[in-house]
Amino acid sequence: MPYSVAVAGASGYAGGEALRMLTAHPEFEVRRATAHSNAGERVIDVHPHLRSLADLRFTETSPEQLAGHDVVVLALPHGTSGAIAAQLPDETIVLDLGADHRLTSAADWARYYGGEHHGAWAYGLPELPHADATRQRAALVGARRIAVPGCNVTAVSLGLVPGILAGVIEPRDLTAALAVGPSGAGRALKTNLLASEILGSAAPYAVGGVHRHIPEILQNVRLAGGVDPTISFTPVLVPMSRGILATVTARLVPGTDPAAVRAAWESLYADEPFVHVLPEGAFPTTAAALGANTALIGLAVDEDAGRVVIVVALDNLVKGTAGAAVQSLNIALGLPETLGLPLDGVAP
Amino acid sequence: MPYSVAVAGASGYAGGEALRMLTAHPEFEVRRATAHSNAGERVIDVHPHLRSLADLRFTETSPEQLAGHDVVVLALPHGTSGAIAAQLPDETIVLDLGADHRLTSAADWARYYGGEHHGAWAYGLPELPHADATRQRAALVGARRIAVPGCNVTAVSLGLVPGILAGVIEPRDLTAALAVGPSGAGRALKTNLLASEILGSAAPYAVGGVHRHIPEILQNVRLAGGVDPTISFTPVLVPMSRGILATVTARLVPGTDPAAVRAAWESLYADEPFVHVLPEGAFPTTAAALGANTALIGLAVDEDAGRVVIVVALDNLVKGTAGAAVQSLNIALGLPETLGLPLDGVAP
Amino acid sequence: MPYSVAVAGASGYAGGEALRMLTAHPEFEVRRATAHSNAGERVIDVHPHLRSLADLRFTETSPEQLAGHDVVVLALPHGTSGAIAAQLPDETIVLDLGADHRLTSAADWARYYGGEHHGAWAYGLPELPHADATRQRAALVGARRIAVPGCNVTAVSLGLVPGILAGVIEPRDLTAALAVGPSGAGRALKTNLLASEILGSAAPYAVGGVHRHIPEILQNVRLAGGVDPTISFTPVLVPMSRGILATVTARLVPGTDPAAVRAAWESLYADEPFVHVLPEGAFPTTAAALGANTALIGLAVDEDAGRVVIVVALDNLVKGTAGAAVQSLNIALGLPETLGLPLDGVAP
Amino acid sequence: MPYSVAVAGASGYAGGEALRMLTAHPEFEVRRATAHSNAGERVIDVHPHLRSLADLRFTETSPEQLAGHDVVVLALPHGTSGAIAAQLPDETIVLDLGADHRLTSAADWARYYGGEHHGAWAYGLPELPHADATRQRAALVGARRIAVPGCNVTAVSLGLVPGILAGVIEPRDLTAALAVGPSGAGRALKTNLLASEILGSAAPYAVGGVHRHIPEILQNVRLAGGVDPTISFTPVLVPMSRGILATVTARLVPGTDPAAVRAAWESLYADEPFVHVLPEGAFPTTAAALGANTALIGLAVDEDAGRVVIVVALDNLVKGTAGAAVQSLNIALGLPETLGLPLDGVAP
Repeated sequence: MPYSVAVAGASGYAGGEALRMLTAHPEFEVRRATAHSNAGERVIDVHPHLRSLADLRFTETSPEQLAGHDVVVLALPHGTSGAIAAQLPDETIVLDLGADHRLTSAADWARYYGGEHHGAWAYGLPELPHADATRQRAALVGARRIAVPGCNVTAVSLGLVPGILAGVIEPRDLTAALAVGPSGAGRALKTNLLASEILGSAAPYAVGGVHRHIPEILQNVRLAGGVDPTISFTPVLVPMSRGILATVTARLVPGTDPAAVRAAWESLYADEPFVHVLPEGAFPTTAAALGANTALIGLAVDEDAGRVVIVVALDNLVKGTAGAAVQSLNIALGLPETLGLPLDGVAP
Repeated sequence: MPYSVAVAGASGYAGGEALRMLTAHPEFEVRRATAHSNAGERVIDVHPHLRSLADLRFTETSPEQLAGHDVVVLALPHGTSGAIAAQLPDETIVLDLGADHRLTSAADWARYYGGEHHGAWAYGLPELPHADATRQRAALVGARRIAVPGCNVTAVSLGLVPGILAGVIEPRDLTAALAVGPSGAGRALKTNLLASEILGSAAPYAVGGVHRHIPEILQNVRLAGGVDPTISFTPVLVPMSRGILATVTARLVPGTDPAAVRAAWESLYADEPFVHVLPEGAFPTTAAALGANTALIGLAVDEDAGRVVIVVALDNLVKGTAGAAVQSLNIALGLPETLGLPLDGVAP
Repeated sequence: MPYSVAVAGASGYAGGEALRMLTAHPEFEVRRATAHSNAGERVIDVHPHLRSLADLRFTETSPEQLAGHDVVVLALPHGTSGAIAAQLPDETIVLDLGADHRLTSAADWARYYGGEHHGAWAYGLPELPHADATRQRAALVGARRIAVPGCNVTAVSLGLVPGILAGVIEPRDLTAALAVGPSGAGRALKTNLLASEILGSAAPYAVGGVHRHIPEILQNVRLAGGVDPTISFTPVLVPMSRGILATVTARLVPGTDPAAVRAAWESLYADEPFVHVLPEGAFPTTAAALGANTALIGLAVDEDAGRVVIVVALDNLVKGTAGAAVQSLNIALGLPETLGLPLDGVAP
Repeated sequence: MPYSVAVAGASGYAGGEALRMLTAHPEFEVRRATAHSNAGERVIDVHPHLRSLADLRFTETSPEQLAGHDVVVLALPHGTSGAIAAQLPDETIVLDLGADHRLTSAADWARYYGGEHHGAWAYGLPELPHADATRQRAALVGARRIAVPGCNVTAVSLGLVPGILAGVIEPRDLTAALAVGPSGAGRALKTNLLASEILGSAAPYAVGGVHRHIPEILQNVRLAGGVDPTISFTPVLVPMSRGILATVTARLVPGTDPAAVRAAWESLYADEPFVHVLPEGAFPTTAAALGANTALIGLAVDEDAGRVVIVVALDNLVKGTAGAAVQSLNIALGLPETLGLPLDGVAP
């Protein structure tokens, strides 16, 4: 019998993708979708692509509506999931797609988000290596509370940590510039997210060290053994609905043999089902990861610049959000990690 | 009486934009457009947007076809303009939109392009400051041979040189990641330039220090006083036909007061008609520069990362190519520098 | 001395384009821009592409703010311009970019818009032929009140009226399906106008005879001599910021020689500066009209289907709105009709 | 044990989508992919989204390479599949994604394609009703040769046939205008398919009754009982990689009660798993069908125009091509018709 699942905040893009991926999974059954402002409406009127859920209607978002399900996925605005989660039974598996339970440092939380810090949950990036040679995967086995990473964080972290762990790139003075689709910003009615503004244009935002994903990236780099990391991080909105193409650079550690660099990435991800290092000279596009739970990585050593360039492509709503949630859930429940998760992208 | 102008290689995107801008200029008259593979066809059948030139037909590209005009604009593939230019009369003003006459270093030319090095012409980036406090503009007055910069080079150089000149950023360990539209790659029939490949996707290319615009950027940084500069440079194709959004970062020189950084950019460009530094907290989009001869610059100091982030937006075909040509031509001929050049973009 | 111009509702896309085109015109000077919700802000903060107006700020929209200018352009929501216009001096030239003064029939107004009918002004489509062989242009000479047509209306009407006037197509059972960019829907914060919804998708709206532009099209067809016209009209939002590509079909009048059809369009538009009939076998794209005040028309007779297919491309914000306003204003003031209006598009 | 499948012409977009969908199906195993010009290359180098096939390489396209598989899918250019198919064993199930075996009329074939007519195979549009109240589905049971419909044909036919069959719309004087993505035109290196040409633009093609899908649509309309049908058919390329949004109109049969029209569509498709009629007032977008094997239909009666407007959205590569192939194959093999086929789209 499948696990019963409820998705809270299911009228947004992240919630909608969670509905889609959970519905496609053989061991889950979506029994409830909540959405405050759409309560009473049919799911398919808000998400006309979700034909499988043609008979489901949104209900109010409340602990009462969410209780009684085996799994609850919270796709709520930052700062709101903590209070709801606190009222759910301990035995319920709760996944937070928002930021409330990602940061271990209360100081980071206070600086970048503000309000009450709820503490960190098991972090839903299974591939993340720790300095002690374990991976984050271990912490997800049997977990009952899971914080799904930010989408940009996943892209940048997966790009950096192999080199940090292997000691071939320096953790200080990292840079990342990301081409990102607007779906990562959610379904909010903001002028800068209108199609007329975004079509034919590229637009940076949160420039200069103020983006909320920065402390989360640095937290991951430290877990991989990076001491006192710093990063210049700039996202740029481009006219594609989904996708993140992260161009990440790091200084090559002096004395490192450039020919040895690639091995750090290839060895760390050799057995990972969803992270793929492309051959020398090949670099990924976001189209190749669209709809798939994969992160694709291309790598080059620029000896003139003294930097390693790592390009990471993923789908912000899949490996960046809902796919990561399902992957983590598979691990938590002892199911095969790849179950129900697409490996192939939808292209062109 | 207007100057008579010929454009060679006018069937491509750069040549087409040169036709458009020269036609709109009150002092120029386009009398000839050449295009090897389209000779005999009407210009409007190849460029259906150029209604003003409905009566013009392409002719063969040859020195004979180009001779006898006051101005010749070469929009030819790299490596081919040098030979043609050598056969044009000295008194003709020749502008090369290609790379053949940009690099002063024969070694750079040999490494990045190969073949015969034709030597450098007056460089068509009027705003570029030299370490001696003059600007490149001076070299363009009365020039008869002008090399128009590469489009990515213009974006990155304009972003960097104020800080280099003022000594507030370090010339070593620069980084640049650019979101660029495919028109910069020309009208070539390549699979990776097909709409099906580019729509909905972001795709990096020339990753890892191999892009031909790198030596040209470094040449400009050195002119502004930067010693032994290095840059990690990564362009990413995104689904917009035109535009470059360059995210450039540089290390803040130790001991620099962050509050003093912005003044370097504002003072250098205070009187420039086409380069605009946005107010604190504002960053440009490519849409705001589309069709205009402007470069728009946003600036932030990221003290945590120890880097200055400079975001530059421009239209690769205008300020990045044909507009730069017309601006340089205005200077060369003693016309008002802004004559015939649009300041306002076409948006949304 | 240039005419002083005020634009009301200048923070939207139509108003912004009016500002852009009026600024580029040698005989007009934009002295005032009003915008209720943006009063006090700089124009350039709302329209970052309008560098020429860097020193202008929005003021409140009121008759007092608009009085005292030679020309007032109203870019206000439907139903609001009538009241404002009624309070402006008779000698002021007033152009309404909205719908309030387009329809001559009070019944049409009541059915499609509702509220008070303000009556029709001189209609700003100079090329529109009347059954008596005059053109709409005549009514614009010296006009002090001008209603600028709807953008879709211009595309469909220009496509149909030559055949109607010549009697080669039937006015009954017309069809039109339009691919349109979202800028035509304005800067409204609606979910269906978000980039995430529009990127990668095509979306019909106002299907089945309910679109407000229908009575206006039929009014124009009747003016050209069409008796009891009917039209099936369907607009489809597609992922381009600007542009209308109208595919219009009409039944060939029985007995008409198919070879004679094309002449109706060619002869009517032979001397029109802004409407261009492409050669046999050629059809227009919206890119070719982007930023230009042109309407491009392709034409085919489908004898099997018994229909003439007319494809019309134009820029909804230029020939569809602000360019039409300037063209009409040129005529009203006795200036050359083409003054200050671009003939060449911005492509690719 | 799964059926062994070979895909010929697998380096194009249709072939690539066939690989993707067959790989995702539990009863099929892709054992061979052929591609003349890519023979020897890895599938993943040509289709970087097909991670599941990372170990497969393209071989030459020849009967020898294709023999020995249970199923062969031909994704070859029009005019080339007939010769190959003739050399495959009778017991092999062969599906032709091209046009060679769609048309029953040799005269239609000669007029629209030319060359040898290979005769028609079982037609892969299971939902298509015949005038005798059966559906096309019956002809697919046990079929060993299947012709998959053209993508535009599927959209237009599904929109029209319910009304034809029910006798509420007239088969004469039909119209269809389609917004289509460039992937339907394949991976051909043509200037009009370059991203720079298609981004920001809408472009009609094959205007005026010359498109090859017209005889196929009329063949389907006749099968549904339409006598002497005619259609004006116009496709318009728009900037989305996938998707067809067909706006189809037909004259309401005089005397028909408009309120009774909708029932024709709803009743015909009530039990169809992949064709969905939206509620009154709702119309589909292509995004809602992206990646899914669904056709979504919206419907309105325009009494003023005397026409029924049917809007159909589908993914040209899925329900329009590869999904239709798999659906037909399921039927042919006696598998559940919906097996392995996605019902939910990938949106936004």
